[in-house]
Amino acid sequence: MARVTIDDLAARLGLSRASVSYALNGRPGVGDETRMRVTALAAELGWQPSVSARSLSRRRADAYGIVLNRQPEDLGSEPYYMGLLSGIESALSETGVSLMIRFVADQDSEAAVYRTWNAEGRVDGVLLTDLRTDDPRPALLDELTLTYLVHGGRRAADGWNFDQATDAATLVDHLAELGHRRIVHISGPPDLLHETERRRAVREIGGRRGMEVITVQGDYTFDGSRELTGSLLEDRRRPTAIIYSNDLMAVGGSIALRSATEPIAVLSWDDSLLCRTASPSITALQRDPYGAGRFSAERLIKLVEEDDHSELLPRSRSALIIRESSLRQTP
Amino acid sequence: MARVTIDDLAARLGLSRASVSYALNGRPGVGDETRMRVTALAAELGWQPSVSARSLSRRRADAYGIVLNRQPEDLGSEPYYMGLLSGIESALSETGVSLMIRFVADQDSEAAVYRTWNAEGRVDGVLLTDLRTDDPRPALLDELTLTYLVHGGRRAADGWNFDQATDAATLVDHLAELGHRRIVHISGPPDLLHETERRRAVREIGGRRGMEVITVQGDYTFDGSRELTGSLLEDRRRPTAIIYSNDLMAVGGSIALRSATEPIAVLSWDDSLLCRTASPSITALQRDPYGAGRFSAERLIKLVEEDDHSELLPRSRSALIIRESSLRQTP
Repeated sequence: MARVTIDDLAARLGLSRASVSYALNGRPGVGDETRMRVTALAAELGWQPSVSARSLSRRRADAYGIVLNRQPEDLGSEPYYMGLLSGIESALSETGVSLMIRFVADQDSEAAVYRTWNAEGRVDGVLLTDLRTDDPRPALLDELTLTYLVHGGRRAADGWNFDQATDAATLVDHLAELGHRRIVHISGPPDLLHETERRRAVREIGGRRGMEVITVQGDYTFDGSRELTGSLLEDRRRPTAIIYSNDLMAVGGSIALRSATEPIAVLSWDDSLLCRTASPSITALQRDPYGAGRFSAERLIKLVEEDDHSELLPRSRSALIIRESSLRQTP
Repeated sequence: MARVTIDDLAARLGLSRASVSYALNGRPGVGDETRMRVTALAAELGWQPSVSARSLSRRRADAYGIVLNRQPEDLGSEPYYMGLLSGIESALSETGVSLMIRFVADQDSEAAVYRTWNAEGRVDGVLLTDLRTDDPRPALLDELTLTYLVHGGRRAADGWNFDQATDAATLVDHLAELGHRRIVHISGPPDLLHETERRRAVREIGGRRGMEVITVQGDYTFDGSRELTGSLLEDRRRPTAIIYSNDLMAVGGSIALRSATEPIAVLSWDDSLLCRTASPSITALQRDPYGAGRFSAERLIKLVEEDDHSELLPRSRSALIIRESSLRQTP
């Protein structure tokens, strides 16, 4: 049996949706007779409020959601995510709304969370991170008509654009200026769209600078990178520098590089205390996850509150923090 | 004007609370006449649902809340919190409920969040962290009758007990065995109850071991600890070992200690990748924040679902990971 909605009641009674809502919520704006007709029919048809109390009157859940599809244990050591989350939350709490957070293990569980949140009216919108190749989430959310914003992304002719080229140029140019001619980029998981963009950008910019560029797919973990970097050392045509797509991989890789016979420079695409305290300290891109989280949350609120779909990009605030891992390890 | 509740309607109509709830929610269990009487009176008195749809039928929000009273920017570099949050969320999501999270800047804002959550029926319970001296939160939540659990704590005769003595003994004994006789404990902010317990325990256990123990109040930050540790080096009666109450302070302190003329051992009360990758690597207590978060969330659900107030303590899973900072820096 389909659920009875306020629209059903309005149609049956020949009333506006607003009048029915006022009647059901005991608010002024309808006469007693109308109120009686509405509540009686609501009881007869088994109408049930489908959303929270606030939503009934304001059609708002006053909460936004984020689902993180990563192993919870791994997130504990990912400084980027805590910065992102706290930035998102800081913008939301200024507006007096809450953040609902879920950690899931796979895409199906993530889809189930959106369906539940949507059915129960628990969130006004959701923030998507880590968009992947053939990601089913935008289509699902479009189908549910649940408002969403893709963190860091904007729609492009051929899909999504995450504007990784500027950061890639900052990293590659730094190595080019230090005289590196053969570099490796160890990226994150291959199906993440922003990682695909990074690999392409590093190859293009390196090529223009006359460098030989090899891209290798990593997994964002400390241990995985340590192993992968160790295997690179066995290659006869070793690079003189490695760009790692996050800080965990950069510190893991650095430890493996301690046994290298020739110095190999290390760059990290994310900065954190790990890069600052590593030995040698690691040159890294300071990307302001807190500010990026705030920006996305503000954009999402604007989408929901004002139906404002303009796709502003955050003012890029990445800055390369130059440390020992590139300065002391010149080719 | 006071809000009209289901209990008010039940009293006026001489019905049970359940019958009124069934009638208002269009569920079976009451006759048509009763349903009509209930809905008519509800409309007349302006009754409004005060909680979400699920709550109306099940008296549950199916969400739990946590408010973190720390600077969001600082939390980004606190691995302990991300581990804790992901542990909490993992236990909640297994039960199919959500986590609401807020970051606040002060105690008043935190109290306001609880009042709002409670008034709007947004959470079934909340988890308190970082209990402080004269903390107003337990009394507020008791007054609101909002279920809460104090993370890591249990009620004791004179307040709360956070069972820090075992971990303190592990750390102090390690130093005693290495022959240290004069040690410093740099704790977290003085009003945190578990830090008060740590200071007392370190002093007592150190005293029993015949050590001279000085406790100093830190602020949990990397930079603060670096400065504080630097000032300790100027003291004529320098310690031969320092126990830091978290990993950020341990790595910050370690960097200051590089300029020490005599080796000083370093221990961290929290382990993380920061301790593992520091140079020298830092001996640290692996405390399993993920497991502790899961445990607290499970306890909170039991409190709410089964009204089970038994105060189990988590099986202590702390393990001392011995690294260079204590092994190589012997007195």
